[in-house]
Amino acid sequence: MEEIGIEITLVTSNENKFKEIKNLINFPINSEKIDLPEIQSLHVAKVACEKAKFAYNKIGNPVIVDDSGLYISALNGLPGPFITWFIESLGIYRFLNSINFNNNRKAYVSTCISFADGKDIYPFVGTTHGSISQIPRGTGFGYDPIFIPDGSDKTFGEMTFEEKKEFSMRQKALKKFEKYFKENVVK
Amino acid sequence: MEEIGIEITLVTSNENKFKEIKNLINFPINSEKIDLPEIQSLHVAKVACEKAKFAYNKIGNPVIVDDSGLYISALNGLPGPFITWFIESLGIYRFLNSINFNNNRKAYVSTCISFADGKDIYPFVGTTHGSISQIPRGTGFGYDPIFIPDGSDKTFGEMTFEEKKEFSMRQKALKKFEKYFKENVVK
Repeated sequence: MEEIGIEITLVTSNENKFKEIKNLINFPINSEKIDLPEIQSLHVAKVACEKAKFAYNKIGNPVIVDDSGLYISALNGLPGPFITWFIESLGIYRFLNSINFNNNRKAYVSTCISFADGKDIYPFVGTTHGSISQIPRGTGFGYDPIFIPDGSDKTFGEMTFEEKKEFSMRQKALKKFEKYFKENVVK
Repeated sequence: MEEIGIEITLVTSNENKFKEIKNLINFPINSEKIDLPEIQSLHVAKVACEKAKFAYNKIGNPVIVDDSGLYISALNGLPGPFITWFIESLGIYRFLNSINFNNNRKAYVSTCISFADGKDIYPFVGTTHGSISQIPRGTGFGYDPIFIPDGSDKTFGEMTFEEKKEFSMRQKALKKFEKYFKENVVK
C-alpha cells in the first residue's frame, strides 16, 4: 500500500462494496457508513456524482462513492442503477424469471467511482460487457450470480476474487480514479 | 372555481399531468415547468415530498407536486415510481412484452400530491387497484393504456375524462389535499 499523504473516505452503506473496493484500491482509505440519497437516472455517473456531492457536504473531507448498474439488452438498457431495487424486492431467482429475454441475454455492467474534493466532482466509469446466465450460479452480492463477463464461462459469483478482478468494471473505474489521483492530487 | 386567497403553484415538467390536475382540482392554480430531481424510492410519498421540498426552495411560494407509480403484483410491487423510465425506454408495447406475468396481472396505481408551504411538507396519497391489460388499449399518457381499474372493463386510456375521474388515483389524492387545504390553510 502506498502512502498518499491525504485522507480519502469511501462513503457507502453497502458493506460488500466497501470490502471489494478496499481490496481493489492501491492506497489506504477510510470508510463511513452513510445511507446516501440516490437520484433517479439511468446513468451511474449522474447518480454517483450526486451521491459524492451529498457525501462531501456531510463529511467535509475528500470522498469517493460508488454507483453501479446492470444494463440488459432485452430491456433496452434497463434496469441500470435501479437493479438494486429489483434484486432487493424480488430476489435474484425471481428477478431472472420476471424478464422475457427473447433469446437476447446480452448485458453490461457499469460502475462509477465519483471523487469529490470540495472543489469539483469527478466521475470515473468502468464498463464490462457480457451476458445474463440462465440460472443464478455461485455467490457474491447484487447481480454477481447472474452476470457472465465476455471472455469467461463463469458468473462473477463463481469467480475467485483474483478472477473477478480481471473482469471487474469496479476495478476498471478504480484504475481510472487512481491514475487521475496520482497525476493530479498527490503532491 | 372557488377563490382561495392564496396562490398555489403546481410544479411539474409533465404537460399531461398539469392538464389533468388543472381539470381535477376545484380551485385556481398556477404552474411552473421545472424538471425536479427525483430520488430513488418505491414510495410515491417519499419521492413527491423530496420534489416538493426542492420545488418550494426554487419558487419560494406554496407549491404542489405530483409523483405516481405503477405497482405490479408479478414484480412484487415493482417498478413503482420507476415506471416512467420503463415506458420511456421501452415504449408501452415492449414494456408489456418484457414482463412474465405468470397469470397474475394484478396491479395498483398510486399518486402522491405533496404540498409544501415553507413550514412543512404534506403528502396526500390516492390509490386505485386493478389489473394490467393483455395489450395496450386507448390513448392517454404513461400507463393509461394498460391499466384497468377494478370495477371497469376499460383501461384508463379508453375512458373519457369523466369516466377516468371516477377511478382516478390522482383525483383521490387531490380530494385529500383539497380537504386538508380547506380545513387548515384557507382562512
